[in-house]
Amino acid sequence: MAKEQLVFQIDEKAAFKLDKAILGGKGYNLMVMKRLGLPVPIAFVVTTEACRRYLKDGRKFFKTLEKEIIENIKQLEKKTGRKFGTNDDPLLVSVRSGAPISMPGMMDTVLNLGLNNKNTESLKKVTKDGRFAYDCYRRFINMFGDVALEVKGEGENTFDGIVNQARKKAKVKTDAELTETDWQNVCYEFETLIKKESGIYVPQDPVKQLLLSIEAVFKSWNNQRAKTYRKLNGIDDSMGTAVVVQQMVFGNRDGNSASGVAFTRDPGNGEKRVFGEFLVKAQGEDVVAGIRTPLELAQMKEVYKKDSKEFKEDKKKYQKYNEAFKKNLQKFLSICNKLEKNYREMQDIEFTIESGTFYILQTRRGQRTAQAAVKIAMDMYKEKLTNRNESILMVDPASLDQLLHPIIDPKVKYKDRIITKGMPASPGAAVGIIVFDPDRVVKAVKDNSKAQVILVSDETKPDDIHGMSAAKGILTSRGGKTAHAAVVARGMGKPCIVACSSLQIDFKNRKVKVNGGEYKEGDWITIEGSLGEVIKGKLPLIMPKITGDFKTLLKWSDDICKANNGLYVRANADTPKDSRKAREMGARGIGLSRTEHMFMGERTELVAELILLITKPTELDKDEKKRKSSILKELLKLQYNDFIGIFKAMNGLPVTIRLIDPPLHEFLPEEEEIKERIEKAHHQPGGREAIKHLQSMRKRRGEFHEENPMLGLRGCRLGIRYPEINRMQIEAIFKAAVKVKNSGYKVHPEIMIPLSSTVAELEILHNMVDEIADEVFNKTGTKVSYLFGTMIEIPRAALVADELAIEAQFFSFGTNDLTQMGFGISRDDAEEKFLRYYVDKKILKENPFEKLDQKGIGKLMEIAIERGTSTRPDLKLGICGEHGGEPSSVEYCHTIGLEYVSCNPYRVPIARVAAAHAALKMKRKPPKSAKKKSAAKVKSTVAKKVKSKVKKVSPKKKAKK
Amino acid sequence: MAKEQLVFQIDEKAAFKLDKAILGGKGYNLMVMKRLGLPVPIAFVVTTEACRRYLKDGRKFFKTLEKEIIENIKQLEKKTGRKFGTNDDPLLVSVRSGAPISMPGMMDTVLNLGLNNKNTESLKKVTKDGRFAYDCYRRFINMFGDVALEVKGEGENTFDGIVNQARKKAKVKTDAELTETDWQNVCYEFETLIKKESGIYVPQDPVKQLLLSIEAVFKSWNNQRAKTYRKLNGIDDSMGTAVVVQQMVFGNRDGNSASGVAFTRDPGNGEKRVFGEFLVKAQGEDVVAGIRTPLELAQMKEVYKKDSKEFKEDKKKYQKYNEAFKKNLQKFLSICNKLEKNYREMQDIEFTIESGTFYILQTRRGQRTAQAAVKIAMDMYKEKLTNRNESILMVDPASLDQLLHPIIDPKVKYKDRIITKGMPASPGAAVGIIVFDPDRVVKAVKDNSKAQVILVSDETKPDDIHGMSAAKGILTSRGGKTAHAAVVARGMGKPCIVACSSLQIDFKNRKVKVNGGEYKEGDWITIEGSLGEVIKGKLPLIMPKITGDFKTLLKWSDDICKANNGLYVRANADTPKDSRKAREMGARGIGLSRTEHMFMGERTELVAELILLITKPTELDKDEKKRKSSILKELLKLQYNDFIGIFKAMNGLPVTIRLIDPPLHEFLPEEEEIKERIEKAHHQPGGREAIKHLQSMRKRRGEFHEENPMLGLRGCRLGIRYPEINRMQIEAIFKAAVKVKNSGYKVHPEIMIPLSSTVAELEILHNMVDEIADEVFNKTGTKVSYLFGTMIEIPRAALVADELAIEAQFFSFGTNDLTQMGFGISRDDAEEKFLRYYVDKKILKENPFEKLDQKGIGKLMEIAIERGTSTRPDLKLGICGEHGGEPSSVEYCHTIGLEYVSCNPYRVPIARVAAAHAALKMKRKPPKSAKKKSAAKVKSTVAKKVKSKVKKVSPKKKAKK
Repeated sequence: MAKEQLVFQIDEKAAFKLDKAILGGKGYNLMVMKRLGLPVPIAFVVTTEACRRYLKDGRKFFKTLEKEIIENIKQLEKKTGRKFGTNDDPLLVSVRSGAPISMPGMMDTVLNLGLNNKNTESLKKVTKDGRFAYDCYRRFINMFGDVALEVKGEGENTFDGIVNQARKKAKVKTDAELTETDWQNVCYEFETLIKKESGIYVPQDPVKQLLLSIEAVFKSWNNQRAKTYRKLNGIDDSMGTAVVVQQMVFGNRDGNSASGVAFTRDPGNGEKRVFGEFLVKAQGEDVVAGIRTPLELAQMKEVYKKDSKEFKEDKKKYQKYNEAFKKNLQKFLSICNKLEKNYREMQDIEFTIESGTFYILQTRRGQRTAQAAVKIAMDMYKEKLTNRNESILMVDPASLDQLLHPIIDPKVKYKDRIITKGMPASPGAAVGIIVFDPDRVVKAVKDNSKAQVILVSDETKPDDIHGMSAAKGILTSRGGKTAHAAVVARGMGKPCIVACSSLQIDFKNRKVKVNGGEYKEGDWITIEGSLGEVIKGKLPLIMPKITGDFKTLLKWSDDICKANNGLYVRANADTPKDSRKAREMGARGIGLSRTEHMFMGERTELVAELILLITKPTELDKDEKKRKSSILKELLKLQYNDFIGIFKAMNGLPVTIRLIDPPLHEFLPEEEEIKERIEKAHHQPGGREAIKHLQSMRKRRGEFHEENPMLGLRGCRLGIRYPEINRMQIEAIFKAAVKVKNSGYKVHPEIMIPLSSTVAELEILHNMVDEIADEVFNKTGTKVSYLFGTMIEIPRAALVADELAIEAQFFSFGTNDLTQMGFGISRDDAEEKFLRYYVDKKILKENPFEKLDQKGIGKLMEIAIERGTSTRPDLKLGICGEHGGEPSSVEYCHTIGLEYVSCNPYRVPIARVAAAHAALKMKRKPPKSAKKKSAAKVKSTVAKKVKSKVKKVSPKKKAKK
Repeated sequence: MAKEQLVFQIDEKAAFKLDKAILGGKGYNLMVMKRLGLPVPIAFVVTTEACRRYLKDGRKFFKTLEKEIIENIKQLEKKTGRKFGTNDDPLLVSVRSGAPISMPGMMDTVLNLGLNNKNTESLKKVTKDGRFAYDCYRRFINMFGDVALEVKGEGENTFDGIVNQARKKAKVKTDAELTETDWQNVCYEFETLIKKESGIYVPQDPVKQLLLSIEAVFKSWNNQRAKTYRKLNGIDDSMGTAVVVQQMVFGNRDGNSASGVAFTRDPGNGEKRVFGEFLVKAQGEDVVAGIRTPLELAQMKEVYKKDSKEFKEDKKKYQKYNEAFKKNLQKFLSICNKLEKNYREMQDIEFTIESGTFYILQTRRGQRTAQAAVKIAMDMYKEKLTNRNESILMVDPASLDQLLHPIIDPKVKYKDRIITKGMPASPGAAVGIIVFDPDRVVKAVKDNSKAQVILVSDETKPDDIHGMSAAKGILTSRGGKTAHAAVVARGMGKPCIVACSSLQIDFKNRKVKVNGGEYKEGDWITIEGSLGEVIKGKLPLIMPKITGDFKTLLKWSDDICKANNGLYVRANADTPKDSRKAREMGARGIGLSRTEHMFMGERTELVAELILLITKPTELDKDEKKRKSSILKELLKLQYNDFIGIFKAMNGLPVTIRLIDPPLHEFLPEEEEIKERIEKAHHQPGGREAIKHLQSMRKRRGEFHEENPMLGLRGCRLGIRYPEINRMQIEAIFKAAVKVKNSGYKVHPEIMIPLSSTVAELEILHNMVDEIADEVFNKTGTKVSYLFGTMIEIPRAALVADELAIEAQFFSFGTNDLTQMGFGISRDDAEEKFLRYYVDKKILKENPFEKLDQKGIGKLMEIAIERGTSTRPDLKLGICGEHGGEPSSVEYCHTIGLEYVSCNPYRVPIARVAAAHAALKMKRKPPKSAKKKSAAKVKSTVAKKVKSKVKKVSPKKKAKK
């Protein structure tokens, strides 16, 4: 466009002409509605181009602009038939900022612009409502003073303060009770405040009001809050904002006026019926405020009943009004259809009827429940309003969480039975008896397999997992959304509430005080993990099922991904049970099986003893050697059986098994517990031996102490320093794989090394894996193909990914740890200490453990991918951090070229839909590793480049060493 | 070169022709010596090109090569006048691998190749020494079997095992005592072993021996160890290795033969005199082995005294030998001159005289002490052998550490008085009385300002700093080179020994048991921190001084840096005293002043109380508010005085001040201490109040506990969450700056934010700094220009450096933390837990806390620089991590474009020389920020790009908010 478009009338002639970048979001939407022929109040837009020119050239340019604006006001006057600044039913306008991307922090809105001391009286005359007129005027002065003149005031001398005082003086509680005179006084005090603070009087000339407001909007583009918002959201600083100037319409003008809101379909369940409410002689905000009870839309057919006071008073007039409303309802219903056809989405519409004339003020995508979202998406497809892709995109993946967990039967009213609230940490509802100790939870379930238990504690730790696994839900008094309890519970798909600080647990006497009440172990409670509610007693639950529309949606999503080189979804699962759940949820493999989780519960004792032996600083004596080998054998058997179960459940799909990861001290009992056990042993026969053992355990525990265990001896460092457990695990994996293969299953193990940061580590462990695999294969005569790979979870690993890819056939991003180290934030500590504060204060846009920090941590991932594939073009890439189930992170994973995401089984459906969204939004080439038919068949097609780098010694030769 | 050069004779004709890439390091050196006309044994080289062809085309190509090799053997025979494989004084050769870059892990050396069962007898005849002949032969079989045929054996049946058995059988202790027959038997058993293991007999044909050896060298290029070495060292895998085939010469052939080593100057003090030793009728290894005492070089003038047995026996023969030796000495001395002239370096030379013929076997740069290094470098400049640049490059910067710390007077013999040894952690020697408690160290020095104390403890922690500062040296029983004691001691330039595990300290009774002895508090000891020696009693020390040659060297280094856009060196200094030391050591500013170090010692009580107040979860009452403000005032005064001292000491130079960094719990007393103090308070009048206070301190300490404090609430997170301390510090800085400026000093403060990872953090703190500065300037009427910047120590900070540079005018790399987080290694824990193991096993080449990990952490730095300067081209860049004083890291900092390095004052001279080395080795453009005349005047020349990004609100407006 050669000529600058500075101001732009929204009318039929103009439609189609300009885009969002010029008109801003609000202006563009107005234009679209106009294009659809909808009755929108008349308006014009001062474009972003004008804003940009102003920010560059300042006041000098504004002079030019002024002329154009005045010209456009004249057009507005012509179209509305009203005059700006006249004393006879004057033209009033709203002034709104409207950037191309919606942006809080900028100057927002001035309503009722055009009023002044004189014509407020005339408005009073026209509307025969002085209270209304002065209320309008004070609103204008307030907004104009606040946003155009930046008047804030101090103490009681603020806009709000003045209204408060007025209420006090009038001895009323609500603004609605203030009279015309009260508002007149308020107007006067507002004007005084503005003069005092800004040094100028509120201009009486509407044109002046308008020009000042427009300039203020332009200036607000560069205020601190707006700049910060843009910085945090990566919005281009040079875009500028548009300003929308629009005729005001009043739903409270007279009895033939009304305001309302409506959804084109039921936002609760998705049913196809226009669903709305309205209030006669009211403004939009009154409908929402809930002071008067709104009427249902259907009642517009007959607003004034024959037996109503008004009807009786002036039958003719109200009959006419009734007819007008009825016609308007018809008109509106047909508009709803039009809008749905145009937007191909359920709409949320604001409308106003001014003296019988119908106006659409706004239409936008309607909020809805997950259930409604799925139904609407499918219905619209059936109605041929949308195609499959559009229907998929209509469903917000994150919302689906609602459909994947038990909920309290919505027919039950329970809010009066809520005991307390905590932080919602894992969604869904659970019912059970209170138990304060994980061991007793396990016992309760052992004694009665149908027992329903809620584990209630201050916090949880890794060796409570058996108890968490046996419980129906978890409730803790401390922690945050990323505390151990929260993370594990989400992994298990169990409802969990944390940081419920009103709980005062008396562990000794097995009871809990909360907000005055007291509950004993064994008392029934219900917890609602999506809302953080703890409710007294046993409420009826409804169990989730993936059926009907939801099932179809998931299938379509998978199809879309397949057809468009999208991601596929695996699950993080550590047990055969989890694996079956994963498959049920549609996982196409396991992306992370944490072998150490198999060491928890009853097996910890054994593991603890093993640790004492393998880390003994001096040589083992004969007895100890025997004991060590017997423990290893026992654990081997246990893990072997675990893997058999997992491989069978995952028949035909890849299973990524991560070797032991956490620091060893996590398997030893806590100091406190050791103390107790020593105390106990004193009173037992033969206790001396036990005490000695416990004391050496305590000593070793102390030796394992680390200032920063997160950065310590764990992951592959452990596997290299004390290789026994690794060796046992590798043997168990291959023995199980061979066994399962020989039973006719298809098995695709992928062995994954945690916490690597150098290629030397991977080389040592790759040799270990190959060696043990060959031994098992030689012994059994069966070969199983497998992959060797690594987590990328230390920043350095990303930076030397080209080296790591010499050994690793796949990378799986451990974004939890990568975030901890890359961001320098300890997940276990940070939430309370500063992270929540940071998010509240907008220092961080999001908790980076909830949504992947694309700018920082994401960059590390991109570096890893670029370097890794430079060595090995068919490197297989996935993610197994918690972010793998978070929709915005899933989309990012698609963008950077991962092959799959892996998340906890209960988030698999969410990830499947999110992956489809990503595939639809961004075309991409297929990841090289995924080109082969089966992902698990990739094995050993090592690129030529790698070959030249590392000519592997043959297994035989290695074995000899 | 069109034609491939596969084999290459080292002779006068060939000299100058080929380079290291073709000849390998050894072959190239031979060629250079030949070019100098030195008498080197005759040799030819099979080139790297031949190796590359072989690795590509295999045996087929080797056939071609064989022909060329045989051709070259013929030339060798012609030149030496001996025949290969003959039975009459046969030609023997050595075969050595020689890659372009020296590389352990490859096949190395086969000596005496050419011997077989038959001609060993003829060697015996010629040398009239059967023992010699069979010793030669067994060495050949051993090396040939080992390296060419890869025979290792098992248990006793290895080459070493066989020799062991032979000694056992002969009932002797050393190989020297074995007889001809013994060696004959050993040869037989070696042959048997080889046949058994490799399936072939040792070839009797020397040509076959040679070809097999050459092929083995080629193959060894790709063995695992060599590959790993290359991977770790970034050596190109495609280079290949050369093979040197060289005539053997024997210094033990007869009485007219000898072997020796010599330095062209004294390696101890650098004096100009040839300094060497030799042994008649001996091989090189005998000179080094020390079984016979070698003669000084001068004695070569008359080897056989007139009254010696030999001379008497055969006067004519030994007279002739004497003359030959004398001539050879003359010849050698002139060769030494020639070599120094050629290499312009002090040389370490190996030579052999075989039957009167003199051979140079090897010449290389000679090792020397730091003192010698400096003297030699300066002398050679005076002798016009070198120019300034070359002289500077002759001195290894790391070695200079020896010259910067007190040493034990070398005239004193003390080795018999060593009590025990620990790990050397900070260099230099110190003398003092033993004191076991930091508080008592302080007291001792308070009581007597000349008291000399060594602090002896199990380990040290942050609040021991006052005691460490008062002590002359530190000795701990635990820890590693990167433990608190070590790091702080190095920072203070105090000798320190850690991990001295034989110390058993009895703190209660104030004594220490060590290796049977017992020492009380007050006993004198001396510690030698460069060697880790703990010595009984008081030894005389010699204090270091930067004078004479050393001073000149440093001045030259600075000049070089200035003239070549090199780095300059700042110091890390926290006190006025340290600052003066820094200046004395030649620092051109302070790169890191840790404000929290000023909180240690007597001030901790105050700080602890402040922490309880500022972090109180509820509102402060009136008394508390008063107390808080009085503490802040008191601390303000203290820090103000500190800054005054520092600014004055640094008059005219920039001072980077880092706001408080460590987690708050470090300022609170340890749990153990609180317990003790509560115990004590119970017995004191008015103890109840104190106990209450201590208990709340304990509680707060518990609340501050973090699982991973390294990744926790510290650095700027603290400054944002609890801004009081930051505000006080900023005020103290500007008040001091104004005061000092008004006294006529030049002051250039640079305020540095620790641990930032988002631009929002910097924005908040930049505003805080500007605001307080303006207040102080307005109040005092004096303005001081200053910079605002940040540490880059969190990986994410590097990745979003473009954003951080919007606020930050300088970056200083905190490579300690950057390594901890980037590598995922906790410095406090890792050394014992796995890091030492990793370094020992070569999983890591170096401890990344000692030498910067260029591949990983360095990449983060490069990313930060690239992104940071993309926003702000004149961004000032430095480093203040411990790596700033480590020469290889300093060179890296030069390469990536930093403006300065900052290190502890005692390493400043090292860094200055290292910086000069870097500047000489790599030309670079001047960093943009350094273009201005004074580094501190850079302030506020914010690039246009930044301006457009952040239009700063004016300070006045900000203050209003």
